[in-house]
Amino acid sequence: MASSSAPQVITCKVAWGAGEELVMEEVEVSPPQRLEIRIKVVSTSICSRDLNARKYQAIFPRIFGHEASGIIESVGQGVTEFNEGDHVLTVFIGECMSCRTCKSGKSSICQVLGLEKKGLMHNDQKTRFAVKGEPVYHFCAISSFSEYTVVHSGCAVKISPHVPLEKLCLLSCGVAAGLGAAWNVADVSKGSTVVIFGLGTVGLSVAQGAKLRGASRIIGVDKNPRKCVNAKVFGITEVIDPNLYKERPIAQVIRHITDGGADFCFDCVGDTDIITTALESCCDGWGVTVALGVPKAKPKISAHYSLFLRGRTLKGSIFGGWKPKSDIPSLVEKYMNKEIQIDDYITHNLPFDDINKAFNLMAEGKCLRCVIHMPR
Amino acid sequence: MASSSAPQVITCKVAWGAGEELVMEEVEVSPPQRLEIRIKVVSTSICSRDLNARKYQAIFPRIFGHEASGIIESVGQGVTEFNEGDHVLTVFIGECMSCRTCKSGKSSICQVLGLEKKGLMHNDQKTRFAVKGEPVYHFCAISSFSEYTVVHSGCAVKISPHVPLEKLCLLSCGVAAGLGAAWNVADVSKGSTVVIFGLGTVGLSVAQGAKLRGASRIIGVDKNPRKCVNAKVFGITEVIDPNLYKERPIAQVIRHITDGGADFCFDCVGDTDIITTALESCCDGWGVTVALGVPKAKPKISAHYSLFLRGRTLKGSIFGGWKPKSDIPSLVEKYMNKEIQIDDYITHNLPFDDINKAFNLMAEGKCLRCVIHMPR
Ligand SMILES: [Zn+2]
Ligand SMILES: [Zn+2]
Ligand SMILES: [Zn+2]
Ligand SMILES: [Zn+2]
Repeated sequence: MASSSAPQVITCKVAWGAGEELVMEEVEVSPPQRLEIRIKVVSTSICSRDLNARKYQAIFPRIFGHEASGIIESVGQGVTEFNEGDHVLTVFIGECMSCRTCKSGKSSICQVLGLEKKGLMHNDQKTRFAVKGEPVYHFCAISSFSEYTVVHSGCAVKISPHVPLEKLCLLSCGVAAGLGAAWNVADVSKGSTVVIFGLGTVGLSVAQGAKLRGASRIIGVDKNPRKCVNAKVFGITEVIDPNLYKERPIAQVIRHITDGGADFCFDCVGDTDIITTALESCCDGWGVTVALGVPKAKPKISAHYSLFLRGRTLKGSIFGGWKPKSDIPSLVEKYMNKEIQIDDYITHNLPFDDINKAFNLMAEGKCLRCVIHMPR
Repeated sequence: MASSSAPQVITCKVAWGAGEELVMEEVEVSPPQRLEIRIKVVSTSICSRDLNARKYQAIFPRIFGHEASGIIESVGQGVTEFNEGDHVLTVFIGECMSCRTCKSGKSSICQVLGLEKKGLMHNDQKTRFAVKGEPVYHFCAISSFSEYTVVHSGCAVKISPHVPLEKLCLLSCGVAAGLGAAWNVADVSKGSTVVIFGLGTVGLSVAQGAKLRGASRIIGVDKNPRKCVNAKVFGITEVIDPNLYKERPIAQVIRHITDGGADFCFDCVGDTDIITTALESCCDGWGVTVALGVPKAKPKISAHYSLFLRGRTLKGSIFGGWKPKSDIPSLVEKYMNKEIQIDDYITHNLPFDDINKAFNLMAEGKCLRCVIHMPR
């Protein structure tokens, strides 16, 4: 039912494209359709998935960005949960609250708003963006590298207007993914030994989660010595640079220093060979390996059956097993109560115009999270 | 400390060898050494692992058989748990009660008495058997196809003299392995959908376990129509013959009939390709695949990472996760209370002299368990 106050197309600035550099341009953002919301993005950060998608994914042209916070500009028909002006975090795995999975309470992988891969809106398989009259695809159902974006109302979580959007955007993906992998998926136990492959924001959030659970040893494995320097802030108790152990498989090194293998191993790199190494680095009997990353190449995991027969478990973790609407508010509360830390993962802040600098920092392994501040 | 009553070498009948037929011969069985017991075998059955080992394993000559019950003939030094005349079940994964794993209570894979692969005694890496003066290797730490055998005292469980040894020998491997995979490893839940690949004794024991947990659908997959006929006795609610679905992958058929995939899948065949199929037959979000078998060929499991990222878990199960000494007595009690059934798995009974007939029945898929009755 159209009225004089019905939302109109917004023209704003976007960073879009593929290849080496993103291009700043004008984009037309359609009004939100049924069950959708249009968000004025306040802060967005770059996650390795943006970096990899820019390099490897075929869908083009598209607008990247999926770790974001913002303020609702307008709501589509049928939206009852949100109002204009609400503060929100975006979530790339939505929660429809009504499919078999959502109702089961047993999993966060919504059957309706699960991983969106085609770059289109869930409702009508169309895009809400156009540049120079041509449609531009979405990314991970979010596309936050735009001043305004349209997302399904199931892909946003309302948060208090009193929490700092420019920090909390990290709960939209990386920090929540790591904490949840440690708490919900692995269920790290007190006194356990944990090995984390990849010391980016996700890996260091697994470390924070393991530390808060009382793990006694949290071993980080990363080839980038720069990433190892500040790892102890997040709970890492010792670091291993695999480059220093070229004569022996790293799994053998880990089994040796952990007296038979770790209780929990996490692949935060997104590499199927590292998943195998992680399984081999776990102990017999009860070792659990959790795979968090999205492998860029070689999508098949290969592992000797005896690793499982001797008592290991392999699990995957997407967004840390959090049911976004049900669970993320409790993480926001933990942040406000200083029970979890987020600020230390933000090593850089840049204005939207400098987004390519942020991509370069990420690509070169020089930052944890660089928060992009959109024009006010 | 030798005495006049010290155990002497026993000469008795054994079925040994490799290749197509086992050979009946005289064997010399040494006295039990420190922490060992010598058992007069009463009943032993043939498990697919015996069949496969006969075909594929390189260690030779050896005495097969690992699913057995018997009566202790003599005990070695330091054995306090057992006395001559005690009734026992053998267990191929022992429980030393003192290693890190046994003390942890978190796993049944004892670090001292875990899977024995070299065909030698744990204590001194020697054999207790000789035929015509030449040493003969053990199998799975048990070697029950002999009138007498020597095992580590950690590889036997004492049971009441009032329970029928000729039935209970099935708790020594197959039936316990299946029940434990359903109960301890998968933790099958009420109302769930279960798929079992391979309807031999182990698969049908998984079925019994799932039925007792209140699973609502228990789908059996087996290429041998003979095995499917009586499957319903054990809880199977429907059977699928993969030969009838050659135009579609069987995982697709299962996902279709289960509305998105099963809650629990079990590979009871011991085939890494079936493990992949089982993972693909599980549902997103919380599907669990349990691998029970020992693959005969192609030891590496290969599976697309997204199966895990979308919420599946892969676990292995060896002897159903039972800690033998701690847990098996409770299974014996359940049998005596008619809470679990064992007798129906025994489709054939044969005297020791006819052991090759029993191997043939097994190889041709014509029996579930054939119990071999040793000479009294
Ligand atoms: Zn991300
Ligand atoms: Zn849903
Ligand atoms: Zn067996
Ligand atoms: Zn032990």
